[in-house]
Amino acid sequence: MTILWVNPVHTPAYDAEIARTLRATGAEVDVLSFAPPGPTHLEYATHGLAVAAPLLSAVRWARAEGYAALCIGCFYDPGLRAAREIAGPMVVTAPAEACLHSAAPLGSRVSVLVANRTCVAEAREAVERTGLGGRVASYRSLDMRVHDFQESPDRTRERMLAASRTAVEEDGADVLVLGCTLEFGLGDAVQRELGVPVLDATVTTVAFAAYLADLAGRFGWRPSRLDYECPPEEEIGWLPPATAPGPVTR
Amino acid sequence: MTILWVNPVHTPAYDAEIARTLRATGAEVDVLSFAPPGPTHLEYATHGLAVAAPLLSAVRWARAEGYAALCIGCFYDPGLRAAREIAGPMVVTAPAEACLHSAAPLGSRVSVLVANRTCVAEAREAVERTGLGGRVASYRSLDMRVHDFQESPDRTRERMLAASRTAVEEDGADVLVLGCTLEFGLGDAVQRELGVPVLDATVTTVAFAAYLADLAGRFGWRPSRLDYECPPEEEIGWLPPATAPGPVTR
Amino acid sequence: MTILWVNPVHTPAYDAEIARTLRATGAEVDVLSFAPPGPTHLEYATHGLAVAAPLLSAVRWARAEGYAALCIGCFYDPGLRAAREIAGPMVVTAPAEACLHSAAPLGSRVSVLVANRTCVAEAREAVERTGLGGRVASYRSLDMRVHDFQESPDRTRERMLAASRTAVEEDGADVLVLGCTLEFGLGDAVQRELGVPVLDATVTTVAFAAYLADLAGRFGWRPSRLDYECPPEEEIGWLPPATAPGPVTR
Amino acid sequence: MTILWVNPVHTPAYDAEIARTLRATGAEVDVLSFAPPGPTHLEYATHGLAVAAPLLSAVRWARAEGYAALCIGCFYDPGLRAAREIAGPMVVTAPAEACLHSAAPLGSRVSVLVANRTCVAEAREAVERTGLGGRVASYRSLDMRVHDFQESPDRTRERMLAASRTAVEEDGADVLVLGCTLEFGLGDAVQRELGVPVLDATVTTVAFAAYLADLAGRFGWRPSRLDYECPPEEEIGWLPPATAPGPVTR
Amino acid sequence: MTILWVNPVHTPAYDAEIARTLRATGAEVDVLSFAPPGPTHLEYATHGLAVAAPLLSAVRWARAEGYAALCIGCFYDPGLRAAREIAGPMVVTAPAEACLHSAAPLGSRVSVLVANRTCVAEAREAVERTGLGGRVASYRSLDMRVHDFQESPDRTRERMLAASRTAVEEDGADVLVLGCTLEFGLGDAVQRELGVPVLDATVTTVAFAAYLADLAGRFGWRPSRLDYECPPEEEIGWLPPATAPGPVTR
Amino acid sequence: MTILWVNPVHTPAYDAEIARTLRATGAEVDVLSFAPPGPTHLEYATHGLAVAAPLLSAVRWARAEGYAALCIGCFYDPGLRAAREIAGPMVVTAPAEACLHSAAPLGSRVSVLVANRTCVAEAREAVERTGLGGRVASYRSLDMRVHDFQESPDRTRERMLAASRTAVEEDGADVLVLGCTLEFGLGDAVQRELGVPVLDATVTTVAFAAYLADLAGRFGWRPSRLDYECPPEEEIGWLPPATAPGPVTR
Repeated sequence: MTILWVNPVHTPAYDAEIARTLRATGAEVDVLSFAPPGPTHLEYATHGLAVAAPLLSAVRWARAEGYAALCIGCFYDPGLRAAREIAGPMVVTAPAEACLHSAAPLGSRVSVLVANRTCVAEAREAVERTGLGGRVASYRSLDMRVHDFQESPDRTRERMLAASRTAVEEDGADVLVLGCTLEFGLGDAVQRELGVPVLDATVTTVAFAAYLADLAGRFGWRPSRLDYECPPEEEIGWLPPATAPGPVTR
Repeated sequence: MTILWVNPVHTPAYDAEIARTLRATGAEVDVLSFAPPGPTHLEYATHGLAVAAPLLSAVRWARAEGYAALCIGCFYDPGLRAAREIAGPMVVTAPAEACLHSAAPLGSRVSVLVANRTCVAEAREAVERTGLGGRVASYRSLDMRVHDFQESPDRTRERMLAASRTAVEEDGADVLVLGCTLEFGLGDAVQRELGVPVLDATVTTVAFAAYLADLAGRFGWRPSRLDYECPPEEEIGWLPPATAPGPVTR
Repeated sequence: MTILWVNPVHTPAYDAEIARTLRATGAEVDVLSFAPPGPTHLEYATHGLAVAAPLLSAVRWARAEGYAALCIGCFYDPGLRAAREIAGPMVVTAPAEACLHSAAPLGSRVSVLVANRTCVAEAREAVERTGLGGRVASYRSLDMRVHDFQESPDRTRERMLAASRTAVEEDGADVLVLGCTLEFGLGDAVQRELGVPVLDATVTTVAFAAYLADLAGRFGWRPSRLDYECPPEEEIGWLPPATAPGPVTR
Repeated sequence: MTILWVNPVHTPAYDAEIARTLRATGAEVDVLSFAPPGPTHLEYATHGLAVAAPLLSAVRWARAEGYAALCIGCFYDPGLRAAREIAGPMVVTAPAEACLHSAAPLGSRVSVLVANRTCVAEAREAVERTGLGGRVASYRSLDMRVHDFQESPDRTRERMLAASRTAVEEDGADVLVLGCTLEFGLGDAVQRELGVPVLDATVTTVAFAAYLADLAGRFGWRPSRLDYECPPEEEIGWLPPATAPGPVTR
Repeated sequence: MTILWVNPVHTPAYDAEIARTLRATGAEVDVLSFAPPGPTHLEYATHGLAVAAPLLSAVRWARAEGYAALCIGCFYDPGLRAAREIAGPMVVTAPAEACLHSAAPLGSRVSVLVANRTCVAEAREAVERTGLGGRVASYRSLDMRVHDFQESPDRTRERMLAASRTAVEEDGADVLVLGCTLEFGLGDAVQRELGVPVLDATVTTVAFAAYLADLAGRFGWRPSRLDYECPPEEEIGWLPPATAPGPVTR
Repeated sequence: MTILWVNPVHTPAYDAEIARTLRATGAEVDVLSFAPPGPTHLEYATHGLAVAAPLLSAVRWARAEGYAALCIGCFYDPGLRAAREIAGPMVVTAPAEACLHSAAPLGSRVSVLVANRTCVAEAREAVERTGLGGRVASYRSLDMRVHDFQESPDRTRERMLAASRTAVEEDGADVLVLGCTLEFGLGDAVQRELGVPVLDATVTTVAFAAYLADLAGRFGWRPSRLDYECPPEEEIGWLPPATAPGPVTR
């Protein structure tokens, strides 16, 4: 089963590293990002909207390619509903959904570590859509821009640890979720130090995608068409073409 | 104060009639729709995503033109958060937000009349984002496609009346909201017949936009930049140009 | 359109200043307060109940006078439901309702600045009735009695600033609401300093009243009589007379 | 321990019968109603506000008389917060509070039988204030005016039975609450017929009052003065006198 | 009316002292604990499950003995639903239920003082089952093991006071609940010092049990059999025998 | 990876058939049930409590045997918290948890098909514990005893279909969950007929267990010990022995 991880940003900067991270977990993944020009991160809702067209292309292309599942690689779960409408037999999921459903069995209260203050609202909206907003202890900001996470891993780890301590000690969090995909690979220190699960938004999403794809394949449990009705072919002629909107790391 | 009503669909079919309806209420409005090709309605989330690019253009153009306010003419409030980030001094609002905040003072429980079953989920998500989901008595489907509303006004009125009676008598609704902008102008019969307020998603939104623009102008109450941070100019060079993405009815 | 602002307290002490504040925003308002003896503030629920009779008189008188709208000038929204039952074509609103519905489009999380600890419960009850309790980040106390606000404007501004900072930095507030009408005119410094909208409970309420009156006049959207049934004339002979229960500042 | 039941209406019509009903349960109660003129029922919020002055008198008088507890005999719990502020050592409670806290241990879902459609909103507000709104299966209307309950006991019982069946079979109610004090004495048939507890709003309230008075007396658990701060004596000189505002049935 | 207090732990260590505490309030109680071996506290869910068999025995024995009511003496309310199914005419209640329903009329926001971090989740689950979770200001940990409470009463009181101050000042609590039965008798100092009600989980539960038993006896209000269906005799032959599973302090 | 499915009832009647059903999905499972005497179903909370001892034995035995995961085979998720405390490296899950987290990505609203009226309360409690109670459209009863499901598969399928239609058409369900493990293998007809996913509580739980075990194994994401603290060995000497409490179907 091959899964496509989409970095819904117009830069290949993280593709190789994310591919390496995901494959290190044993997953069979390809990674796609979008060709410039366009936003290279999605901290703003504007940027999230701006990647709509390549995201739709990516979904159509991935479906045509026969991927078992597609992961929309941003914690705001952008375009998840639309992607499910047109994905056909391919499974689609995204980090907020994957992380919250995976965290809930691990502890009563979950804290989400977001990049900065402006990220709270969109992260919260994505989490509320999963239905598990009532389980959130807090959204804690690392007070960093998302491009700094991998640039300054030590600083990121340090801030993660501080924010996590506050989440655990003051907010009552039992479990932590890295609320941005670009925090990938940086949660291990917190997990070791604090002894609580720290869910990485990349590997969790791929694992959950594989889980959903497995259910779909074995039992036919695909998104309910009462809720995710497929637009008829004749009215989506205007859709962006089913070609890869950027480089694919295979 | 001139307000821009955006029909976020790639057809001018409703522009003239909506302009007439809105102006009949005394509002000073221009109406914009998007040039084909593209979706001519937004019943699907896919379609909502597909209009992202022209919607961003519309916001930038409207801001440059100096409109006091812009209304995103779809009850799912698509792109509202993004539009607020880049609208500068221009106010932006949309139907679910406008209708729910206007309906709440009129009665304890509100029912929303949506086109069909597949619309419930997106209408609910938009309503939940307003914070007033707890006031909803029910989402009632008219079991029609949105393009049929104005084609068959008598049938629409008849189904509205039936759905409204059920909402009032079985669901306990005190107030009704037309949960699709294409139901414009068709709620009066229900209001007369049942004696409860029936909020039209077009005129309510323009009125609420004028209200918010008035607050912004007099008191400087614009969207909090803690929540709706503006992307810096240097990183939105890739944004679609600030030109009108379709015909403007002035 | 003339709006009546009711200071539901038995002192004219604030009438002139509130009239000036409201008129400075361009509103056409008269201000009414109640003749002594009686409570001169409503910090206690007892006091709120004690002004029931003059409040009912005020509503009946205002309706007879032909005011377009009446604002009940206390953040606990006392008597709002009753006033709507008997107001006939006149619109009635009150600060918690007006401020919350106006604040919601400006930011995801709202903090309310109340006078002191004992005010929290009634402010919360009023806010919960609006349906927007889920949007509140915190109720922050200024630890002052309400009569001190205008007596010591500098101290008030200072405490407002301190409480607002806490609300923004610790509670995650994006927008602030002055949770007592007697804080009128004192929020500007906070707005300038912190750069977030600070809604004044007086001018917001008058603006929202005008908005609702506009909807009522143009579209007939008045409180649903399923929810706000009007008592028949023959059974309200005992109502206090429709005369002004105190001085009117025109 | 003597408890004062207040019929907060300006008619003695129900005093004797309610006294008899309450005493038949073994309670030591006096019954007070208000002297005409004034509302003889509280179906409207207007009426509820109109009885504020005699209600405050009643509380002060009862406290001075040394009653252990006072019950505000209307399911909307009017004036409960104010009464608690000024009741001193006397306990105050009211039907929505008493019935919901007593019903919760008897079943997961509770339905409330109100007189008619217009009563739903105020009953719901009172129930929400108890904190137990999430336990309500439905508010079911008997479609009667409150004065008809005791006039036409057979019709009342018949409608109660029909509404209760619907509540149990369609709404999933496990327990029923008579949502108007004037339904007193009429729930037994439903309880026998359907085999579920049917809480009478009069006897439950007196029993809960005795319970709270017992806790207050033995453990000093009186309303928290952080929440129910007592207004200082010097500022309530304007309160209605501490005399009985109507006839007392001892 | 005799009430059975069950210490659902396999040690008689607290029986005499709890009996003395309860009787000092005037209650007529017997106290039962379970014979060793088995858990001597229920800090862990494992321990709570491990006492299932003797708890079922205790309920059956108490019913056969004719006790009016049985209190399950642990704040997690273990086995409450099962006990109600088989208790017949005997009333059953438990501390979270009793304390929350008794605290709600005393203040808007309640904080629960639990032994330590690991107790929060189970205390919260028990509180949520009462329906009053929305009234909780905070769960505050005393950071002690439950067996230390009575061993080190001074330290317990000191920590209670510190936690209570935080609850009142930072979390907005109006009322406090001792969230472990082994905190019995230790809340008075906090109540005196802070002037807010501090509900003891032992005496409150016995009082509430007496209240419910009184309602059951006088009005037949027993748990709804729609919700708490009694298992038929023929299928519970495997139940532990109706004998006392440990010493009884009469 | 071998998973142990526990039928927490004292009958082997369903072991073989459930083993066959689970293995047909490709899972490597053993099935354990409890030796008589004891309850053969868990429709009553009493029965759920009565199986506590063998359930604890089963968990300890399974851990010692080295199973990767254990599924507690009852939709009320009995003993889940306790099992997690003592399971060590072994993963534990149960049907309500597994089904709700798996259903949420498939549709906005979920209906749960329970055996009969008395099952609603416990099913709801289990679902609320997952955090996803807000996603439930309805609990629909099949009005059957659980032992009849497999006895009368045609009747079961017929009632499932009727209840599912109501859930979809009246309650707005997008997805269905079989709310009793003994409905195993009977949901396919509904899925084919209505075209919506129908989650089987047995196969879903095993699949989710494998998913959680995979996360645990690869990333160390095990239940947070802040929430699920392990009781120290020295204080669980009284635990039932770590032997199989009944027959094992390998």
